[in-house]
Amino acid sequence: MARGKSQTQRTRSYESDEHERGACEWCEYALVITLATILLIGVSALTIFWVFYYRDGYAWADGSPAKQFNLHPTLMVAGFITFSGFSVLLYRICRCFRRIYVKLLHAIFHALAFPCIVIGFLAVFDYHNKSGINNFYSLHSWIGLVAMGLFGIQYAVGFFSFLLLLICNKGTAGFRASLVPVHAAFGILTFVLGVCACLTGLTEKALFSIGADAYATLTDESIVVNAIGMSIVAVAVVVLYTVRGTGGYRLRKVAAQHPS
Amino acid sequence: MARGKSQTQRTRSYESDEHERGACEWCEYALVITLATILLIGVSALTIFWVFYYRDGYAWADGSPAKQFNLHPTLMVAGFITFSGFSVLLYRICRCFRRIYVKLLHAIFHALAFPCIVIGFLAVFDYHNKSGINNFYSLHSWIGLVAMGLFGIQYAVGFFSFLLLLICNKGTAGFRASLVPVHAAFGILTFVLGVCACLTGLTEKALFSIGADAYATLTDESIVVNAIGMSIVAVAVVVLYTVRGTGGYRLRKVAAQHPS
Ligand code: HEM
Ligand code: HEM
Repeated sequence: MARGKSQTQRTRSYESDEHERGACEWCEYALVITLATILLIGVSALTIFWVFYYRDGYAWADGSPAKQFNLHPTLMVAGFITFSGFSVLLYRICRCFRRIYVKLLHAIFHALAFPCIVIGFLAVFDYHNKSGINNFYSLHSWIGLVAMGLFGIQYAVGFFSFLLLLICNKGTAGFRASLVPVHAAFGILTFVLGVCACLTGLTEKALFSIGADAYATLTDESIVVNAIGMSIVAVAVVVLYTVRGTGGYRLRKVAAQHPS
Repeated sequence: MARGKSQTQRTRSYESDEHERGACEWCEYALVITLATILLIGVSALTIFWVFYYRDGYAWADGSPAKQFNLHPTLMVAGFITFSGFSVLLYRICRCFRRIYVKLLHAIFHALAFPCIVIGFLAVFDYHNKSGINNFYSLHSWIGLVAMGLFGIQYAVGFFSFLLLLICNKGTAGFRASLVPVHAAFGILTFVLGVCACLTGLTEKALFSIGADAYATLTDESIVVNAIGMSIVAVAVVVLYTVRGTGGYRLRKVAAQHPS
């Protein structure tokens, strides 16, 4: 792999410098990427299928608040699971890329997640106000608030340090490197909280819309909703597996050795 | 700290050999332990309070299935959050202990969690059968099944490798060391799934027992249930923060250097 490249380029990628990876590691790598891609896209696709097939599709402000609500799960799953998941996995997927490109991709994926989350929240907030339902009463909404708050903070900090990178690369290297482990740990936390918010939200929605009695007979829709939930769990397993031992360590080491 | 001890004892503890930790690190350490202990005990205490104050207390087989159900959340929170949480944190708390003691404590805490989980499951299973409710229909029960399955596998693997340690220490060191990162990663995963099961379970129970309409008005009980959920989230934050970068790395390094 990176053997042919110049030393500079190798140390500026996230590639491990310690050893050339064997066939087995490349196999695992290919497997994880394929699995992750299928799951990350699959979970959003399944949510959209569920909304169209069982919940009448989408709408906004045309007098159908129930259809407007449907934007909430779809956009939240897209933002917190699909886009954020890809964004986190990038650091593992693009090992041979130059680091500035990985960071750009990371920024782009989060720039996609951001409006999804904002509109996803506004959809349910507006739906609650239109229908006269209280705001922020459920465990789900409390977890969701914390997840969105953390996402916002992470976004601001990442944006700021990325700007610093562009404005003054060398002078801010040490500072930026010291942010990396914190940013990584909080990123994983935000992701886990997003997963928890999705799972509690799906549970609520199943009981509200399918109804407790029908849900207990495992109707077709129950199975679809449970399948969305289990796919989200599978995504969490793959993402947590892939970034295991990150929580800062590996990135910290790389960043400390050659901050860019 | 470990300065006065013999070299043998130092290398047989989980203490970092690299540097003496400064006052700041000890402060963080004390803070995290205090916070974790309060939260871990608090979350079980709050659950028991909730059951006695709002849900009529406990029973088994005296013709009150609803009271028998109450054993389920209490024992599951005790097993998957309180005992498992302590068991995971141990590796960080008992840094200066000899490693065999830490392992013994780890085994003891999981030996406490095990019956909690088994009885907690039987309580709800028996309640469902008595009341003619279907089994395993909800997202919550599917997540719960995966969490319990993983817990069982982890328990079996841990037990087996701990036995190997007692029977043949030297000969199995390499094999056991290679199990450590896998065991650590799956342990964190099991814990996260336990958290997800608890949060979806609380959401279900709130909608079943408080009722969707009353839950939306944020009654006293709603606040208590939400508080249990948020404490579980707080526990997850503290535990994930404390074991960050574990997912094997640190333990793996220690284990590879001096397997015992
Ligand atoms: C990370 C993802 C998610 C976040 C951050 C989130 C956040 C929120 C917030 C803050 C509210 C309260 C809005 C208000 O009270 O005005 C809410 C409501 C709601 N969400 Fe989500 N949500 C997420 C995913 C989902 C998913 C996947 C579903 C599945 C259908 C869902 C279903 C609901 C339902 C039924 C409500 C209305 C009842 C309630 O307030 O609890 N949510 N969500
Ligand atoms: C890690 C912790 C937990 C696990 C592994 C777990 C597991 C399970 C399983 C497997 C079932 C299905 C039993 C059957 O269908 O026969 C179930 C049911 C149930 N659990 Fe839990 N549970 C956990 C925590 C909780 C908590 C904290 C609550 C909060 C009150 C809760 C509330 C419920 C309810 C209401 C049911 C009956 C409805 C249903 O089947 O979904 N659970 N649980």
